[in-house]
Amino acid sequence: MSTNWLDEIKWTEDGLVPVIAQEAGTGQVLMLAWMNRESLALSVQEGKAIYWSRSRGKLWRKGEESGHEQIIHDIRLDCDNDVVLLEVEQKGGIACHTGRHRCFFKQLQDDQWVEVEPVIKDPDAIYK
Amino acid sequence: MSTNWLDEIKWTEDGLVPVIAQEAGTGQVLMLAWMNRESLALSVQEGKAIYWSRSRGKLWRKGEESGHEQIIHDIRLDCDNDVVLLEVEQKGGIACHTGRHRCFFKQLQDDQWVEVEPVIKDPDAIYK
Repeated sequence: MSTNWLDEIKWTEDGLVPVIAQEAGTGQVLMLAWMNRESLALSVQEGKAIYWSRSRGKLWRKGEESGHEQIIHDIRLDCDNDVVLLEVEQKGGIACHTGRHRCFFKQLQDDQWVEVEPVIKDPDAIYK
Repeated sequence: MSTNWLDEIKWTEDGLVPVIAQEAGTGQVLMLAWMNRESLALSVQEGKAIYWSRSRGKLWRKGEESGHEQIIHDIRLDCDNDVVLLEVEQKGGIACHTGRHRCFFKQLQDDQWVEVEPVIKDPDAIYK
């Protein structure tokens, strides 16, 4: 398998690229995370989102604990070759570790961030 | 005007936050750019996307040259307080400096990035 397509990406100094996950069908933006070269190559190989956890410093197979995997339908790169956009099927309908559908649940309302999307499942029940 | 909401954002070491612009109506992800504290405050104040250009090291009023402004409909923050999502109306229907509707026009097909979205307007005609 050719890996030239990986060389075309402009990785950060830390060897990462920001990755936006958008839900197929609804078009909702679920989350933004980061990938390194290995995790992006694995994501393509397995057809599932595998991020690089900056806080833990290791591969993060999305859904490995929760079962909330992201099945990849489409992979895009932007004009500057430094942002990746995934179209995914979100297993379990929950992308966020807080148990919400997606991570962007805080809305700016009159100078305040207000939580406007419900918790679907208690995180304690997700991560046992 | 309270600016506490700005303090809640986890800025990078460079004082930036990644900002995803999503088109109202179509739900298409148009681009990802960066904002600093000043540019985000101004964006809210003016109701238009004003980014921070990392390459030029200055405020980047989206559409200042092209007229392709982004009118802000909604502002979201993610669970980790380190990514912003804007819902915008894209003036002129062109978000990308290449003259395309959006920046994510390269699709991964069999280990190759293939341009799958058309140029709507010649950049030479946009940036005179």
